[in-house]
Amino acid sequence: MTKEIKELTPRNESYSQWYNDLVIKADLAENSAVRGCMVIKPYGYAIWEKIQRQLDDMFKETGHVNAYFPLFIPKSFLSKEADHVEGFAKECAVVTHYRLKNDPDGKGVVVDPEAKLEEELIVRPTSETIIWNTYKNWIQSHRDLPVLCNQWANVVRWEMRTRLFLRTAEFLWQEGHTAHATKEDAIEETVKMLRVYADFAEQYMAVPVIQGVKTPGERFAGAVDTYCIEALMQDGKALQAGTSHFLGQNFAKAFDVQFLNKEGKREYVWSTSWGVSTRLMGALIMAHSDDNGLVLPPKLAPFQVVIVPIYKNEENLNAVTEQANRIITELKDSGITVKYDNATNKKPGWKFAEYELKGVPVRLAMGERDLKNGTVEVARRDTLTKETVSVDNIATYIKNLLDDIQRNIYKKASDYRAANTVTVDTYDEFKERIENGGFISAHWDGTSETEELIKEETKATIRCIPLEGDVEPGKCMVTGKPSKQRVIFARAY
Amino acid sequence: MTKEIKELTPRNESYSQWYNDLVIKADLAENSAVRGCMVIKPYGYAIWEKIQRQLDDMFKETGHVNAYFPLFIPKSFLSKEADHVEGFAKECAVVTHYRLKNDPDGKGVVVDPEAKLEEELIVRPTSETIIWNTYKNWIQSHRDLPVLCNQWANVVRWEMRTRLFLRTAEFLWQEGHTAHATKEDAIEETVKMLRVYADFAEQYMAVPVIQGVKTPGERFAGAVDTYCIEALMQDGKALQAGTSHFLGQNFAKAFDVQFLNKEGKREYVWSTSWGVSTRLMGALIMAHSDDNGLVLPPKLAPFQVVIVPIYKNEENLNAVTEQANRIITELKDSGITVKYDNATNKKPGWKFAEYELKGVPVRLAMGERDLKNGTVEVARRDTLTKETVSVDNIATYIKNLLDDIQRNIYKKASDYRAANTVTVDTYDEFKERIENGGFISAHWDGTSETEELIKEETKATIRCIPLEGDVEPGKCMVTGKPSKQRVIFARAY
Repeated sequence: MTKEIKELTPRNESYSQWYNDLVIKADLAENSAVRGCMVIKPYGYAIWEKIQRQLDDMFKETGHVNAYFPLFIPKSFLSKEADHVEGFAKECAVVTHYRLKNDPDGKGVVVDPEAKLEEELIVRPTSETIIWNTYKNWIQSHRDLPVLCNQWANVVRWEMRTRLFLRTAEFLWQEGHTAHATKEDAIEETVKMLRVYADFAEQYMAVPVIQGVKTPGERFAGAVDTYCIEALMQDGKALQAGTSHFLGQNFAKAFDVQFLNKEGKREYVWSTSWGVSTRLMGALIMAHSDDNGLVLPPKLAPFQVVIVPIYKNEENLNAVTEQANRIITELKDSGITVKYDNATNKKPGWKFAEYELKGVPVRLAMGERDLKNGTVEVARRDTLTKETVSVDNIATYIKNLLDDIQRNIYKKASDYRAANTVTVDTYDEFKERIENGGFISAHWDGTSETEELIKEETKATIRCIPLEGDVEPGKCMVTGKPSKQRVIFARAY
Repeated sequence: MTKEIKELTPRNESYSQWYNDLVIKADLAENSAVRGCMVIKPYGYAIWEKIQRQLDDMFKETGHVNAYFPLFIPKSFLSKEADHVEGFAKECAVVTHYRLKNDPDGKGVVVDPEAKLEEELIVRPTSETIIWNTYKNWIQSHRDLPVLCNQWANVVRWEMRTRLFLRTAEFLWQEGHTAHATKEDAIEETVKMLRVYADFAEQYMAVPVIQGVKTPGERFAGAVDTYCIEALMQDGKALQAGTSHFLGQNFAKAFDVQFLNKEGKREYVWSTSWGVSTRLMGALIMAHSDDNGLVLPPKLAPFQVVIVPIYKNEENLNAVTEQANRIITELKDSGITVKYDNATNKKPGWKFAEYELKGVPVRLAMGERDLKNGTVEVARRDTLTKETVSVDNIATYIKNLLDDIQRNIYKKASDYRAANTVTVDTYDEFKERIENGGFISAHWDGTSETEELIKEETKATIRCIPLEGDVEPGKCMVTGKPSKQRVIFARAY
């Protein structure tokens, strides 16, 4: 017997194959003809649009505005901040020419050697340099500060090993770039945006996250401090879901951006940058989904409810459709998004499997008997349970159900994380426990030598130095040297 | 005396300088360090976001979904459609390498010659080729059709002479790409999207447009027919504001995209593409603005109302602010966007000029006397008139006023166009009239020779063969040969 085309590899067989199957079969994304670049398909893009809209609202509520900066960065700009160029030079797409011409041999087109750029342009891997070159002209006085800009854009990092959503050569993201008069203001902004990301992850994606600070070795290239949110996937691996960087005066100095402070003295500007990307799609998919397919939190589902009619003949279908239309109106009036699938070339069973695969939170099915009884069958995606309920007050019922699903999948992810987070005091125990995946809270002596050693020996990295929880000193599990507080280890995406 | 920094060059002195001044001084956009690429500043981007949101809603209402395709196009893809490569090869950014390395001479970074791509990648100038290569895998049967995708993206065309918004090397746009089972369906889609563009231009941008078809010489590279909307700017020049292309089976053949029709026979797919870009910003700015600054239609203004308090002391300001807050609540409840500018380091006169420059449709000013009288001063940007009105029912008053402003600026643009559209029957008269600018309706024999001759001698191009109006045959004004209908000429951006 051949496998059903829509069947997924079970998670316990191969988690990574399950993920790849799911992304493809749920029509979220696919690989393109261009190495490492993905096509985001309409259903996947609809989820991304929900993510974007919500984040954008949250950015605006916290006083930010959107702007747009060039796709290209002159090569010399990259070099102006030493760590920055070190971090990005080795994986960037370089534009060297601005014209093609007909192949003299008569076959297709070739690069026109006469159209060579004087200075090569880099396709932005991130925009600090081009933006700080721009801010130089925007900022003269303390009255011009703060500058609180965000940009929604595509960026390119020439990754050698790519995976849909998780690591692609081109990806979509937002990057906030802010300028402040004082160090304190900039740090406050960095933390504020970290909180926004954490709120978004927990309240909308239903993914619990640990908020923390990266070790120097894991910092963004050019940052003084990198704050991050870390989530735990179902295979026990951690995923960095968003970062917020305190950049100090590094880019202000590199691009000579100074302002006249209230005392009339010239000072370098303080800055931050922060971003989340289509990688969030990967986190969303991996955090909740199961062997039947996607499980989407209602707040980010392209449509929250699907209605499937059950019928024997056209007369039947018409009667069901009439009832469905009443329900649709009620749901829409309550702000619930709904799709009615009355396609006649697909059987109900096929549709059930399809919407399960696509993670639609609630499925309603209705047939002749339901019409007689004034009922509808309600199936919830998260628990795969069904019940028959009255159509009276259906909108209120569904509204509560969607809230319950949102809470439940958050709780499930939260319980999973709790069950897979351990506190460990010896390196031997660490080496044993890391094989099970999950977060490990342990003491570390604060040196990059020890960090590197642990990484080499166990493949685990320090995900972050957590901002919350008890700060209790101790001794490094490896060297026995003093440690200020426990840090979070995991193997990571 | 030196010119006020915010003063614009008057239109009658130099229309093109006035435009450049306005774009810069109203904080809409500026040139970047990268040749031909612009920075869209927050105020300009806020207008673009309004445009995007409205168009996106209209696309979705007509059954379209969004998706995302790669930024890069393999060089060989461009060559697959002969006209297409001819149209775009000469102005494209070419990625040849994927890595930089430290300069052996110790100064900055250089392109790593060992990281040369096997096949060069073109930064998309438009996405037909990469999309049709993708659609090949999406389309097998007539059941897979139609495919109705849109993409919001950045594109790059290496223009030699650039102007902010009107012609830039990188610009933002949307590109719809649809696939259909029949020629009729594809043509219907092409015209439907042209209507959407025309509705948007007229109802939201308040810019009247002529809908028509391009001559073969002005067609999109790869199209069978290009439909367009053409607007008239205040300097008498035409601006193409949007295009919708019927592509026939050209791209389906180039990428071998066939489907099994209802009769079980394989057929090539029919297609369309359609797009509008940040060029619309240029049209919006030029169509309505005056020597005092921007004039924005209320439907696209980032905020529709600004309130400026007039006060002598802090007590004063507090009382005005209390009243202002009541008004703001009322306006917001009516769906009106409003900004309260209580900055204390700027004089009211400065604020008045600033919001005039930025085109805010309605300005409210309130002082002590207004508080006593229960009044507010209302100034409208389009007519620059002021009146004092009661604060009772202020929301209803403003709502009607905004509708009136929207109508009025459309009417003004419409009257201007009517006054600058003439019907001409002889080439002599044509040559005389074209010097005044405006649209000229005249007979043409349908040959590219005559079209070219007119262009060379008068700099006027055929903007379109209009879809509406009387189709009355006549004789070409140049050659006297038969003409099926009058076409629209103008000098154009």
